[in-house]
Amino acid sequence: MENRTPRQSFTTVTDLVLPSETNPLNNLFGGELLARMDRAASIAARRHCRRVVVTASVNHVAFSRMIPLGSVVTIEAQVSRAFKSSMEVYMDVYIEDRESGERTKANEAIYSFVAVDDTGRPVQIPAIHPETEDEKNRYDAALRRKQLSLVLAGKMKAAEATELKALFE
Amino acid sequence: MENRTPRQSFTTVTDLVLPSETNPLNNLFGGELLARMDRAASIAARRHCRRVVVTASVNHVAFSRMIPLGSVVTIEAQVSRAFKSSMEVYMDVYIEDRESGERTKANEAIYSFVAVDDTGRPVQIPAIHPETEDEKNRYDAALRRKQLSLVLAGKMKAAEATELKALFE
Amino acid sequence: MENRTPRQSFTTVTDLVLPSETNPLNNLFGGELLARMDRAASIAARRHCRRVVVTASVNHVAFSRMIPLGSVVTIEAQVSRAFKSSMEVYMDVYIEDRESGERTKANEAIYSFVAVDDTGRPVQIPAIHPETEDEKNRYDAALRRKQLSLVLAGKMKAAEATELKALFE
Amino acid sequence: MENRTPRQSFTTVTDLVLPSETNPLNNLFGGELLARMDRAASIAARRHCRRVVVTASVNHVAFSRMIPLGSVVTIEAQVSRAFKSSMEVYMDVYIEDRESGERTKANEAIYSFVAVDDTGRPVQIPAIHPETEDEKNRYDAALRRKQLSLVLAGKMKAAEATELKALFE
Amino acid sequence: MENRTPRQSFTTVTDLVLPSETNPLNNLFGGELLARMDRAASIAARRHCRRVVVTASVNHVAFSRMIPLGSVVTIEAQVSRAFKSSMEVYMDVYIEDRESGERTKANEAIYSFVAVDDTGRPVQIPAIHPETEDEKNRYDAALRRKQLSLVLAGKMKAAEATELKALFE
Amino acid sequence: MENRTPRQSFTTVTDLVLPSETNPLNNLFGGELLARMDRAASIAARRHCRRVVVTASVNHVAFSRMIPLGSVVTIEAQVSRAFKSSMEVYMDVYIEDRESGERTKANEAIYSFVAVDDTGRPVQIPAIHPETEDEKNRYDAALRRKQLSLVLAGKMKAAEATELKALFE
Repeated sequence: MENRTPRQSFTTVTDLVLPSETNPLNNLFGGELLARMDRAASIAARRHCRRVVVTASVNHVAFSRMIPLGSVVTIEAQVSRAFKSSMEVYMDVYIEDRESGERTKANEAIYSFVAVDDTGRPVQIPAIHPETEDEKNRYDAALRRKQLSLVLAGKMKAAEATELKALFE
Repeated sequence: MENRTPRQSFTTVTDLVLPSETNPLNNLFGGELLARMDRAASIAARRHCRRVVVTASVNHVAFSRMIPLGSVVTIEAQVSRAFKSSMEVYMDVYIEDRESGERTKANEAIYSFVAVDDTGRPVQIPAIHPETEDEKNRYDAALRRKQLSLVLAGKMKAAEATELKALFE
Repeated sequence: MENRTPRQSFTTVTDLVLPSETNPLNNLFGGELLARMDRAASIAARRHCRRVVVTASVNHVAFSRMIPLGSVVTIEAQVSRAFKSSMEVYMDVYIEDRESGERTKANEAIYSFVAVDDTGRPVQIPAIHPETEDEKNRYDAALRRKQLSLVLAGKMKAAEATELKALFE
Repeated sequence: MENRTPRQSFTTVTDLVLPSETNPLNNLFGGELLARMDRAASIAARRHCRRVVVTASVNHVAFSRMIPLGSVVTIEAQVSRAFKSSMEVYMDVYIEDRESGERTKANEAIYSFVAVDDTGRPVQIPAIHPETEDEKNRYDAALRRKQLSLVLAGKMKAAEATELKALFE
Repeated sequence: MENRTPRQSFTTVTDLVLPSETNPLNNLFGGELLARMDRAASIAARRHCRRVVVTASVNHVAFSRMIPLGSVVTIEAQVSRAFKSSMEVYMDVYIEDRESGERTKANEAIYSFVAVDDTGRPVQIPAIHPETEDEKNRYDAALRRKQLSLVLAGKMKAAEATELKALFE
Repeated sequence: MENRTPRQSFTTVTDLVLPSETNPLNNLFGGELLARMDRAASIAARRHCRRVVVTASVNHVAFSRMIPLGSVVTIEAQVSRAFKSSMEVYMDVYIEDRESGERTKANEAIYSFVAVDDTGRPVQIPAIHPETEDEKNRYDAALRRKQLSLVLAGKMKAAEATELKALFE
């Protein structure tokens, strides 16, 4: 099983915000964006491991900017770190202004996926080697997020989450 | 502006898992559940504050159990803590077995919402008073989660997140 | 096969009215509400008999109040009477005002379902015992409605529909 | 306001049954068919009165035959009787076998619509003149159904529903 | 295998333009109409050959008139010519004005389908005999369009497309 | 109004083929792919002209390869030529194999769009300058296709379509 790079899983999903996907303020519904990001992230995860993948968790999504009706929304997803059978996928979401063509970052999101066989059991996946500075930073932070996730789920004691603990010292 | 209780925002959404909402393993798609939870949580948030609400963040969702095609899925959502203009909504998701009628917990999820006026600007919302033991625990934990959210977003220094820091000492 | 109570099949479905579900007057489309009620009622029927259920008939639905865009709609469904292999499900539909939180009844509806095995053949289902006054009234009326349904379908002579005939004397 | 004939409102809607519209037995969901019939009937009602129309009630729908995945379903809708501002629409639903091309009746349904102005207030509509024998029978029966509907809604006393009463004597 | 006439495959699909299907100018989305026409045309193709059919190509669609929100849209589809295992389906699309009831042609479209067996392999289909003048013209033109299609796909040399060539001389 | 290059309008849409989007052979429905291509192409057109765009025509789409359930489908769209107020958009559609990661071309498609103002009237758009060999070939062919489109629509005499005519001599 050969190693892969984050770039090999890079996935771009571009789409419009249509009237049926907006809330009473005429912005894209949070739930709709969550669903689109799940599809984009699952494609990136699948490109990394070439197996069936299922969503394991949503780690953190902040809707920092509203996304108005008629926007072109681009989701760029890339695997940031691979563990034994799970992967973290990091997404950047952009909107672009129709008239100026200018592109603005709307939010970031982090999902985790597990690779499974046809019976739904986890299978081992290739390791990943970050190449750029940005990829390396996200790779390192992914371990802290994984520990946080385990602590919040009560599967790891806070005291044992060494990477995470370092943040608060 | 009178105070409210978590119970006053209690919202139940029951639905089936149809073929069009499943992944290749015949389980409910993660993205579809994320979207349904967003709708359920937004109704709970709106019941608390009686204003238009928009999704601010998804704090943590773990898909601990697969939800097979044909399941009856029940999402129970309730505001766990209200801040100045934002609220945390806590959700428990259950599936039930058709033949035995038995109900099993499938996962928990936490979303945050902001109450806004017609121009999209945040408005103040009523405080909340937890009543049961469970409600009190979730109320307390909500502050730690808010700090965590601010730290992860780079809007608060880890050292200042006193509630959160206590977890690791 | 033990008897059941109407309460055991009680089902709540809460949802928003989104722009894509409205007619030119900005109210919820009749067809959309009919489809949502079918899903809610089928869950109640399934909870009563714990079998696969299929819609047998829609007995009467009156859209007495329009349901405007942005409303929170709550459908409460409960089996009102069980026959040999069919059940009547009674639904009350409520909308609530966002600002006052006040809940108003929008309409009632009655659907019938048949429990079937995997080949689609009807199977016997548990009897039901109404408990409250309201449940008893709906239980009694269900027989008249069943007779009416048979008369309208040409499967029973009007003269033999004794319960129904009594209404007109 | 000139009179119209039932034929002038005749509406045909042909469509396929796709996987996403089926229940666990691989037949068309009752709720999906109810929604499609609402759209077909509303077009027929609108063709009669040339006004905005809203669904007023569903009078009776019996799902006598299951409609399997892959079927071609044809809904034929026609106004059967016009009252002051409301209309009854009668529908016949057919499925056809792909290999033999044979067409079979799957069920009948009756919906009522009200014509409204832009503020949602009922407006007067043209009278209707049935031409064929079949149209005349449905026209006559429509009055009995209207009385039944009023009796069931508690808006008319059974004793005053003269047309309906005659059925039971 | 008996011959058939174009009329035997005649298919009518009537539907409304709802808010969720419109572009920023409040007209029906091109993509939505393309999808509806594909469903209508596939039913006509299937009625001709009584086999499973798959879309082979879209030959030409011109959106000559915008179709506003709230329109009643009627698609009339009919097989115009059958080849060995493929068929050309010709569609006329009409909209009607609610107030006058007047019907206007919005556009024409031509799709091709292939009849296949359960493994997806092409199968032979019945010949077709045009009856009306209009049907005969479309039947003749279909051969020119087929040649054009083959030329554009690089599967036929322009010089061999005798029917087509005649157009330019 | 500055000139633009095809590359500036380049748009990538990646998505999965879900069960609800497949035909009886478990391949992506033609109509669904037509609708997705319309969205991708309209984003490319809008990126070129920075105006509201509406679909003007579908020139030719050949579904040369079936796209099975579970595929990852990538649509790459780019403006190939700009006329006064209309643009031709050229699309390449790829599918990739989950296990090998190998990417195969599934089909090509050509749509045309018109840029309009808020009242729906055509507006002038920037010219385009092809850069690569491939872009130049598609740019040249676009004029022939435009003539063909005008001839087929009866808006140009075949004899005047000089570019097109050359093909057959």
